Amino acid sequence: MNIKSIQDYYEDRFAHCYGCGRLNEYGHQLKTFWDGDETVSRFTPEEKHTSLPGFIYGGLIASLIDCHGTGSAALAYARENNIKLEEFNAPRFVTGALNVSYKKPTPMGPELEVRGTIKEIKGRKVVIEAIVSADGDICATGEIISLLVPENFGQK
Amino acid sequence: MNIKSIQDYYEDRFAHCYGCGRLNEYGHQLKTFWDGDETVSRFTPEEKHTSLPGFIYGGLIASLIDCHGTGSAALAYARENNIKLEEFNAPRFVTGALNVSYKKPTPMGPELEVRGTIKEIKGRKVVIEAIVSADGDICATGEIISLLVPENFGQK
Repeated sequence: MNIKSIQDYYEDRFAHCYGCGRLNEYGHQLKTFWDGDETVSRFTPEEKHTSLPGFIYGGLIASLIDCHGTGSAALAYARENNIKLEEFNAPRFVTGALNVSYKKPTPMGPELEVRGTIKEIKGRKVVIEAIVSADGDICATGEIISLLVPENFGQK
Repeated sequence: MNIKSIQDYYEDRFAHCYGCGRLNEYGHQLKTFWDGDETVSRFTPEEKHTSLPGFIYGGLIASLIDCHGTGSAALAYARENNIKLEEFNAPRFVTGALNVSYKKPTPMGPELEVRGTIKEIKGRKVVIEAIVSADGDICATGEIISLLVPENFGQK
């Protein structure tokens, strides 16, 4: 079975994000999936993503939560509105606000898991809570307020 | 006159951060200075740091605010405690919590300026408010709670 991430369904023009764009060859290419009623993304940092030696820099954690949030919002919005996802009809969200709480230093080495819970869907706004863990240890939590990009965005 | 950034005064072991470490050749090497009672960092994103075409991805904005926060906290703590900065005696802070509010899409092209205001210094905690602007337009605001790294961090 070939299960695609929400990012695989973004229009090409919305697929260049450094954090999650499948067309950004330099970026993280984060991919977000449903796992029951939760959403999940996974990412293994590279050595260069250091903060203090042995740990991951906070900006990467924030970036993962950010893009996990917009991906989760798109998944939730599509489910709520009975949009059958196909290439390339996914709704595209951007972040209005991002809160991150760093619970402990995130270790360098393990794959990181970001789990999302959909807290609210209201009109064009989706609120997601996220948990970042390494080997099952919670390293950071976050909340993302995501906003649907207008369909005519970037068009002249 | 040769004015150095706070990051130039970090111990080598604290100078590897992807966001602001002078020894991380792959990272952003953000540098933070006093400007009167405010702090300032400047960074010009690269094309790869795209979100939607023409704009900067939110994770980079969060990363700049994050490292501007720890740098500002170190500057403020040193000033508050009459620490005369020299190589390599700067206090090193990490981020406990980070809030970012995205006010408008941050355009690709201009140098970004991050300005910080010190809101609170209490024991090992410093709270900073930050404003990110491009060509004078405010694109994002943030708050960072920074915590002083214990002196024996990482020692056995």
